[in-house]
Amino acid sequence: MAGNPVAERDAMARARELAHRGPRGVNPQVGAVILSPDGRVLGEGWHRGAGTPHAEVDALSRLRPEEARGATAIVTLEPCNHTGRTGPCAEALLEAGVARVVYACDDPGDASSGGAARLQAAGVAVARLDEAEGEAVIADWLFVQRTGRPRVTVKWAQSLDGRAAAADGSSQWITGPQARAHVHRERSAHDAIAVGTGTVLADDPKLTARIDGDADAPQPMPVVFGTRAIPVDAAVRRHPRGHRTAGHDLERELFGLAADGVQSLYVEGGPTLASAFLAAGLADRLTIYLAPTLLGGPRTVLDDIGVRTIDEQRRLTVTRLEQLGPDLLVEATTEEVH
Amino acid sequence: MAGNPVAERDAMARARELAHRGPRGVNPQVGAVILSPDGRVLGEGWHRGAGTPHAEVDALSRLRPEEARGATAIVTLEPCNHTGRTGPCAEALLEAGVARVVYACDDPGDASSGGAARLQAAGVAVARLDEAEGEAVIADWLFVQRTGRPRVTVKWAQSLDGRAAAADGSSQWITGPQARAHVHRERSAHDAIAVGTGTVLADDPKLTARIDGDADAPQPMPVVFGTRAIPVDAAVRRHPRGHRTAGHDLERELFGLAADGVQSLYVEGGPTLASAFLAAGLADRLTIYLAPTLLGGPRTVLDDIGVRTIDEQRRLTVTRLEQLGPDLLVEATTEEVH
Repeated sequence: MAGNPVAERDAMARARELAHRGPRGVNPQVGAVILSPDGRVLGEGWHRGAGTPHAEVDALSRLRPEEARGATAIVTLEPCNHTGRTGPCAEALLEAGVARVVYACDDPGDASSGGAARLQAAGVAVARLDEAEGEAVIADWLFVQRTGRPRVTVKWAQSLDGRAAAADGSSQWITGPQARAHVHRERSAHDAIAVGTGTVLADDPKLTARIDGDADAPQPMPVVFGTRAIPVDAAVRRHPRGHRTAGHDLERELFGLAADGVQSLYVEGGPTLASAFLAAGLADRLTIYLAPTLLGGPRTVLDDIGVRTIDEQRRLTVTRLEQLGPDLLVEATTEEVH
Repeated sequence: MAGNPVAERDAMARARELAHRGPRGVNPQVGAVILSPDGRVLGEGWHRGAGTPHAEVDALSRLRPEEARGATAIVTLEPCNHTGRTGPCAEALLEAGVARVVYACDDPGDASSGGAARLQAAGVAVARLDEAEGEAVIADWLFVQRTGRPRVTVKWAQSLDGRAAAADGSSQWITGPQARAHVHRERSAHDAIAVGTGTVLADDPKLTARIDGDADAPQPMPVVFGTRAIPVDAAVRRHPRGHRTAGHDLERELFGLAADGVQSLYVEGGPTLASAFLAAGLADRLTIYLAPTLLGGPRTVLDDIGVRTIDEQRRLTVTRLEQLGPDLLVEATTEEVH
């Protein structure tokens, strides 16, 4: 069965919007739209988190009996083929009589994949559409599937000469308001935010995302790394998402965070924690705010990251350069992009 | 007497070109063109260095007797009014019968200025033209007149995190060929190049400007700062300009360099010398080459620059940001530009 290209493309864009309504967590965000054979929208659905119906089943549930017969299902992720807490979506689509399924991303799961093949074997027409856009919706989730850990962004602000603070530890304000506003948007875009106990003790940060005009901005969950105690009156203890503590085995902690649905982690401070993530090869993306100032002295933004000789330097691929008021933002990945 | 605007503007542009033929040194570079009353070029001249005729006298000397009578002299710098090793130019112009003088820059000298007033008092028409362009020709010389010392550019190359080298001291290659080519052009654009003895001992740099396709590029004079001995086989000893040594009193050394005609100094290494110039407030311009790499560890590009607390940070004004292959060049001044 051939599709209706214009209606299907519009429906896939809508399905991507619907996907974002669902929560980020151990399951991917998925959206679905059911189209009639003549291209009308019959129903919409999205996945509301582990243990709830998958997006296509959610969409089907909004139709009248027999309304899906001969219809086309547009889904941002390949319908699953396994019985978890919910039944396999491929079977649900077959039972509903759907004649055509259009999806964006392949399901990368060992147990859950194969839905497309199952549908085709049962005579359903299957097509892929907008793969890149569909993958972008769940890029962090796909990263977790591939690596078992959240995608890690390490952030710091520095003087041009690589200092985080003056000799006495004072650092307000190295960067300007535009850079600081950008940091709050970045916080909100991550599932969790990591600091070391040293930063908690020195700066007592709130670790909330404070965005002008968006009081409901998503808040990252604070994760405090280190063995020192968090003071009873620390601001992080009043964080709306609570907080979590983590030890020195970074990889193990990351696996644990991923298991609890953290797809992305924003490592914000300080030099000890940033250096540890870099030394362990666990920094995927860097956001470095360069202030047009010089400080000199001992308070470097990084300590030892395991580079003994120049052949071991950690080359970066700069993915973005942006002027934020007087400051410069350098975004980079630690992998060479070709 | 009114001038011929088009002919005078063209002649001033030509005079600026002529100025550049003269040497940089204790005297400014000056060019002059003599125009007939109907705007034809009667003669050209430029200043060839201390003890030789000034530009306008050089130009007058190329004319036939009485040819300058009623003519217009176009000069990039206000004609001088004092008797140094040569007579005052104002008098020479008067004696030649010049009816109009057009100049670009005021003479900033206490003893030499006043030429324009002298000429006007004697009935010569005097006008200013293209001040900014004229000042640009001798910007470094004017800086020396104002401060008594050369204009200092401090250059370094660093990893993003502000390191000059890996922990073991190895540093080749942090920056790419485009950045290194830019450094050679900068060397050639300065009168002298400064390094510390530590850099001579560690890297044995040639300190020459090597520019592809320009074998005759001007070479900066090497100045080696510090008290340690320069090895007998050091490359700097074979520099085409010879070399000069300097001690720890930076300001005194700079005054000495200016007295010997050095208008601009390029401070190239290493961290100790750069930090000393910054700490002393003697760095006017910075050129920082940022390589997209991280090194961590102890080899910072700057040591202590005298900043104890954040209020003492050394704010910079970024005057240029340029991508040079994979690297980023940040040019900045240490003065706030408004």
